[in-house]
Amino acid sequence: MDHRELALVLGNAIEQQQFEIALERVKGMRPVDIADTLAEINPALAWRLLDKVPDRASIFSYLDDDEQVAMAREFPRANLARLVSEMPSDERADLYNHLDQGQKDALLPALAQAEREDIRKLASYREGTAGALMSSDYATLDGNMNVSEALAALRTEAPDAETIYHAYVIDEGRKLLGVVSLRALILAAPPTLMHSLMISSPIHCRVNDDQEDVAKTVARYDLIALPITDEDGALVGIVTHDDAMDVLSEEATDDFHRSGGVSTMIGNMKDVSIRVLYQKRVFWLVLLVFGNLFSGLGIAHFEDLIAANIVLVFFLPLLVGSGGNAGSQSATLMVRALATGEVVMRDWFRLLGREALVALSLGATMAVAISAIGYLRGDATVAMVLALSMLLVVMIGCIIGMSLPFVLNKMGFDPASASAPLITTVCDASGVLIYLIIAAQFLPLG
Amino acid sequence: MDHRELALVLGNAIEQQQFEIALERVKGMRPVDIADTLAEINPALAWRLLDKVPDRASIFSYLDDDEQVAMAREFPRANLARLVSEMPSDERADLYNHLDQGQKDALLPALAQAEREDIRKLASYREGTAGALMSSDYATLDGNMNVSEALAALRTEAPDAETIYHAYVIDEGRKLLGVVSLRALILAAPPTLMHSLMISSPIHCRVNDDQEDVAKTVARYDLIALPITDEDGALVGIVTHDDAMDVLSEEATDDFHRSGGVSTMIGNMKDVSIRVLYQKRVFWLVLLVFGNLFSGLGIAHFEDLIAANIVLVFFLPLLVGSGGNAGSQSATLMVRALATGEVVMRDWFRLLGREALVALSLGATMAVAISAIGYLRGDATVAMVLALSMLLVVMIGCIIGMSLPFVLNKMGFDPASASAPLITTVCDASGVLIYLIIAAQFLPLG
Repeated sequence: MDHRELALVLGNAIEQQQFEIALERVKGMRPVDIADTLAEINPALAWRLLDKVPDRASIFSYLDDDEQVAMAREFPRANLARLVSEMPSDERADLYNHLDQGQKDALLPALAQAEREDIRKLASYREGTAGALMSSDYATLDGNMNVSEALAALRTEAPDAETIYHAYVIDEGRKLLGVVSLRALILAAPPTLMHSLMISSPIHCRVNDDQEDVAKTVARYDLIALPITDEDGALVGIVTHDDAMDVLSEEATDDFHRSGGVSTMIGNMKDVSIRVLYQKRVFWLVLLVFGNLFSGLGIAHFEDLIAANIVLVFFLPLLVGSGGNAGSQSATLMVRALATGEVVMRDWFRLLGREALVALSLGATMAVAISAIGYLRGDATVAMVLALSMLLVVMIGCIIGMSLPFVLNKMGFDPASASAPLITTVCDASGVLIYLIIAAQFLPLG
Repeated sequence: MDHRELALVLGNAIEQQQFEIALERVKGMRPVDIADTLAEINPALAWRLLDKVPDRASIFSYLDDDEQVAMAREFPRANLARLVSEMPSDERADLYNHLDQGQKDALLPALAQAEREDIRKLASYREGTAGALMSSDYATLDGNMNVSEALAALRTEAPDAETIYHAYVIDEGRKLLGVVSLRALILAAPPTLMHSLMISSPIHCRVNDDQEDVAKTVARYDLIALPITDEDGALVGIVTHDDAMDVLSEEATDDFHRSGGVSTMIGNMKDVSIRVLYQKRVFWLVLLVFGNLFSGLGIAHFEDLIAANIVLVFFLPLLVGSGGNAGSQSATLMVRALATGEVVMRDWFRLLGREALVALSLGATMAVAISAIGYLRGDATVAMVLALSMLLVVMIGCIIGMSLPFVLNKMGFDPASASAPLITTVCDASGVLIYLIIAAQFLPLG
């Protein structure tokens, strides 16, 4: 039975107040699977089941932002406050940021003071930073504790901590001194002090660091959790491996969309509205219309040449397309290499030289192909014009496609916005001009 | 000091046999950072330092496949055997698969029997499967152990296990019965038996499952490690969260490249040769040349119409480009949504309907833009031909762009191979035809 079928069964059970039956069906299911099922049920029914499931906070955290907000609207205030107080701190702050002002005002007074302050603090960090990603549910130890004391402390902290596999040694000012893994703790002799067991100056990030850098740090050092400090080096949170994985996956999707000329923040493809899809895509397409005016102007300038040699039109889409395609291939390689950090700015000149050679080979291959067709459709002169144009169009396309992501990167923009439509439009215009200028040298002008 | 500068310093020190100086410089550095530095040093020098660093196996594991093979070639046989026996089992099997036959034959006899068998076993799994990704260094427990016995067992297993945060309860036939987290173990009362503490029927994958599915399972359930079983349900390995993260990142890069019309398996962009780059890209570009012959044939059929209305040429690149761009946007959204599992086949009809409406809006917007320009350059008839063509070209482009990934998916191909060049070429050809057929209805035929 898949999520939709189960959702129907559960929805019926809830409507008929048969909660025991519904609870029995979800027993033993993982929180993320229950969340996927509840997302298919009307929130006005779904909250009533969720409210009765023991790990409701964990399930609720797996719902999308929109689904969370819709369900939060149905919860009575006291039940919502209970749910929110049980949620992991990072998820809770995210939810808070997505509620409307009325919901926020209703929720806050129903929470305990410490939770209220925790939410306010975490919710204040700018979206896309380590602060907005981190959880404040981490385990800390004192440097003077021995192994038994540390284990006892972790047992006390465990119910509220996202992980106890890494615990952080801090001083009185909460300054991060070191990290102790539970593995090291289990293996150490009981009298060992945390000061000597910990790894000092651990890998960490700052609250204002970009979330993508944070996620890459977690991936690079294979961490289970990464400590986050404020400007004074005080520990303020941790980012766990699963949240880092989500960030990398989101960023890959964003880069993918952007490079295809679709603005990001589309969220789940299945649920997005026609209006949002239109808005996210219309910009590049209309820009393309105006960009292509330049190609058109080039053509207008050569109208007589074209009228005298209609065969030129036959190859126009091909030459224009080839430049754009070669260029968007180069851009694809560069954008991804910049995103994964494989390539840095100082590699640029070396890579540009190599790209020119690759483009020369690609252009030569395509020149051979097109000149054969040109000879069949036209004559030797047409074949030569086509070969020469193809070579130049592909080379210039590749060089534009390779340079644009670097230039954007240097200017502080995301290189992924060197999208296929942008590259295509620039390469189209230059392709048309190159083709017609070369043709004008060798063919009768009419 | 960055990796390249440090590499120069270390290279000099090694050449002058000043190993204490070199070792002092790398002390306190993380394994992945040492690996990045060693990768910049001639392998004939680098191995001599690596051989003397205590966590050489961990450092070596962070090197790229090519770098590992190059360095393995420099190691004396006994030292290589020592290094290999210290490596994590999954990394070791990968290395073995990349060695040439001579190196394999030299290495195997120098290893202990158990290691030899472990390598042979792990190396036998097909690339891209769970088996090829998994490690055999996991911790197991007996269901009848109590908490103290289990902790004692984990202390014994810890030095060889990739993680002891999850330990697996198996029966005499190694059948996977359950998973016990170290967190649960620490919190449980000492007499508790593993049978009652464990989570039974844990999330697991099979050895022959696709590595992408394995990685998605790890991400979906936020696991630190995922157990892998054989056909009989016996535990044969684990895949850890960091390896899963690497797979997701690689797959995202592959999809990105493929959708840009670049074949995958390019590896690190910085190090790849001109020849490989040429080979990976030439296919789509040459295919495009032949694909565009269809556009050309369309044009040839309408030569008289074009000669009588040269103004049509002015708008040809624009109309053709718009269809291709709109189509590649649709494909971008679909390919990524299919890759992340957001969208499944049965959503197709609903999405197609929505895409048609989005395309109608986009096409109408662009039709307005282009018809204004058409009126200025030509007359009201040209403006109408352009508007009608643009609307149809964009709609058909979007529908092709949305359908092709689904069709490929249904046929068992990777939807990411519905690359921009393919979509562009198909949309180009249909765009040219639509444009000229519509023009032929309203404009003088010459």
